Amino acid sequence: MNGTGSEEDPWSILRSLPRGREVEIETAGGARWRGTLVPPHELSGERTVQLKLANGYNVGIRISPQDRLTVFPPSPLLPNAKAVNPQRLPGESGEPGHVSLLTTGGTIASRVDYRTGGVRPVKEESEILAFYPSLEEGGPVRIRTVLDRLSEEIGPGDWVALAEAVAAEFRDGARGVVVAHGTDTLAYTASALAFTLGSLPGPVVLVGAQRSPDRPSSDGSSNLQAAVELARVGALGEVAVLMHAGLSDDRFSIHRATWVRKMHSSRRDAFRSRNGEPLGYVDGSGVHLAAGARAPSTGPPTVDTRLDLSAGLFWFHPGAAPHRAQLAAEGLRGLIIAGTGLGHLASGHLPWIRQAVERGTFVGMTTQCLEGQTDPYVYATGRELLRAGVTYLSDLLPEVAYVKLLFALGRAKTLDEVRAQLLTDWAGEFPGRHGVRELS
Amino acid sequence: MNGTGSEEDPWSILRSLPRGREVEIETAGGARWRGTLVPPHELSGERTVQLKLANGYNVGIRISPQDRLTVFPPSPLLPNAKAVNPQRLPGESGEPGHVSLLTTGGTIASRVDYRTGGVRPVKEESEILAFYPSLEEGGPVRIRTVLDRLSEEIGPGDWVALAEAVAAEFRDGARGVVVAHGTDTLAYTASALAFTLGSLPGPVVLVGAQRSPDRPSSDGSSNLQAAVELARVGALGEVAVLMHAGLSDDRFSIHRATWVRKMHSSRRDAFRSRNGEPLGYVDGSGVHLAAGARAPSTGPPTVDTRLDLSAGLFWFHPGAAPHRAQLAAEGLRGLIIAGTGLGHLASGHLPWIRQAVERGTFVGMTTQCLEGQTDPYVYATGRELLRAGVTYLSDLLPEVAYVKLLFALGRAKTLDEVRAQLLTDWAGEFPGRHGVRELS
Repeated sequence: MNGTGSEEDPWSILRSLPRGREVEIETAGGARWRGTLVPPHELSGERTVQLKLANGYNVGIRISPQDRLTVFPPSPLLPNAKAVNPQRLPGESGEPGHVSLLTTGGTIASRVDYRTGGVRPVKEESEILAFYPSLEEGGPVRIRTVLDRLSEEIGPGDWVALAEAVAAEFRDGARGVVVAHGTDTLAYTASALAFTLGSLPGPVVLVGAQRSPDRPSSDGSSNLQAAVELARVGALGEVAVLMHAGLSDDRFSIHRATWVRKMHSSRRDAFRSRNGEPLGYVDGSGVHLAAGARAPSTGPPTVDTRLDLSAGLFWFHPGAAPHRAQLAAEGLRGLIIAGTGLGHLASGHLPWIRQAVERGTFVGMTTQCLEGQTDPYVYATGRELLRAGVTYLSDLLPEVAYVKLLFALGRAKTLDEVRAQLLTDWAGEFPGRHGVRELS
Repeated sequence: MNGTGSEEDPWSILRSLPRGREVEIETAGGARWRGTLVPPHELSGERTVQLKLANGYNVGIRISPQDRLTVFPPSPLLPNAKAVNPQRLPGESGEPGHVSLLTTGGTIASRVDYRTGGVRPVKEESEILAFYPSLEEGGPVRIRTVLDRLSEEIGPGDWVALAEAVAAEFRDGARGVVVAHGTDTLAYTASALAFTLGSLPGPVVLVGAQRSPDRPSSDGSSNLQAAVELARVGALGEVAVLMHAGLSDDRFSIHRATWVRKMHSSRRDAFRSRNGEPLGYVDGSGVHLAAGARAPSTGPPTVDTRLDLSAGLFWFHPGAAPHRAQLAAEGLRGLIIAGTGLGHLASGHLPWIRQAVERGTFVGMTTQCLEGQTDPYVYATGRELLRAGVTYLSDLLPEVAYVKLLFALGRAKTLDEVRAQLLTDWAGEFPGRHGVRELS
């Protein structure tokens, strides 16, 4: 128990504590509040925390620098995963298995090229260990270069190679696999791995850096260290993205692969979960997983990388010409639309969409708002699109729906089969309690 | 003051009361809570109300049928705006001028159609005043229907009609103009008005509703009331978007038109400023503007609605086929790319982009992260795109860059002129250069 009084502003401590920590706040006015930190609601301003009290009430408390804060040891809400869930791989005996680190190029394994002033990928494994000397402190790490390119160049073919490489690492006895990846398209690749890998016996952790590792402000070293720690603990059985939770180097969010999006071009905490909370955190006290995080499977991993690239993504906007959209979608087996609001577009697009569906093209609707669900029943436009055969995809992000579509097309033959695959939960990708609204 | 005790379940009264009403709850256990009803936050369950207490704390209270409820008379919602910042138009004498309310269709002027279960636009002005009886309490409001359609149908031609209608209202003596607009494409229209209208003698306030006005949860009434207050105060000389700041009906954000984006499909606080703070707030104590908000001009408004629709928006993603992107961009005078990260895409797209620029097409780069700036100098990909003639557009949102491009094409002939127009600040659209930080 740490009492902190006059030296440090209690707000700076409170805002870095994970949800679920028990604290007591004694205000300057003498009031005492003891409870569990819960996420702040909409109305909370700066310097306000929400506490769930023992009697069940939630109280919003504005923190002043004079308040006295007591932080209690972690409660079992988000347990220290290492202690609570020591995992042993099937057939494993004695020492824990190694962690595999697969590199693909990108900023986490790049350095400034002083000839051009730009950043070039680091290729040699020895060079990587030279940048990250403490990586093996907790146990052996095997490094393997699977790809060597910046992430904007990584596409569907690379996803297949990566999925197979990850499965091979588990078959070779890895407790967990870390994939170092450029951040530009890291979330796309994460979705692809989540949709192709099943029955994971340990975590697959995608990790990146927003700054190159030879810069003082680099986040690569701490991200990679935390990712290896999460992989070593092994208590997670799904594909996740680990990146800075905030601007400090001591707290990292674990995002579900299919919920995460890069929401800033340069900040270290650019990656955010949409429509749901992160699966957990890594901080100085260990790995903390939320109740909804998937446990490891006991079986060997499965891989299904069948895919069909005959798919597109159409980002609707006012002024979008129907004939151009039709041209771009011509001959495709599937198309994801990022519509406005609850899933709309201008009715001038209805004729070509209707035609496309009649010819057997799957057309799926998502929202360009990037949060909230689609709903075809509120406005006439939605009902017309539904009648035209458009499938509403609830709270799937447009990009995630596109990635899923490629694999759904690989697994399904008929339009009805593709539809059924898109609406089936493959990897926990529907954040709204996996609630896919029944469509007629 | 009504005391209700044993006869009726207090929950059935509480849940029908508007936010902002003052109540006192005496629990069966003897605890007394007096405060103002605020919207329940995410974690609140059924039968739970949130009260803001006099000391500023928010408390969530679970209501049991035995609780005793007292409801106090309503307090004025937005009392002080007029008093805080009384503006007088140049040449105006005596009474303040009227506020003009232009309607376009959309949820703020829609009602449930009980035949279809969907929502239909309200068309008659008398019907609008019947929904919003208190609109004229602070002064005269002239209502005019400019368009009659859901916002997903509103496009560039409508922007021109609206810009001309707004300018005409100012010429007719309006202190400020409110534009009621469906939320789906509200931000696009707001940008278009910001780019076409200049020297504004008062605010142009776009406002919408996420729920239709005949539903108890509607935000339309309070949004519209606050928008009319802002227009009446008149202390702002730019196009802004006013919507709920949070889930409560008593605080509204004023967003710069070119910074705002709809970031949730259904929440009342879906509209958020990107890369900058809102221009200010409207709350119970009046209108509060940040230092960077533009002051009204003394001259009459200018309108320049020249536009050229020969423009497109290409949202890059892994797997995007270069030949399809090329086909979609064929023959366009301008194209905005929403690239990854700092403004990248796969190098397979370089040949057609290079060709397009060589043929005189403007190609502008933005980031699909939606926050942060583009930067072509960090990675080789950016430098190659720069060499191919791509113009990096800093922190312009992809959609805002697209809207600006239509008008830039209308005003400029050569590629160099289009480039120069895109990089010129027309309406404070570059948040990094014109960051509004301080709130007065």
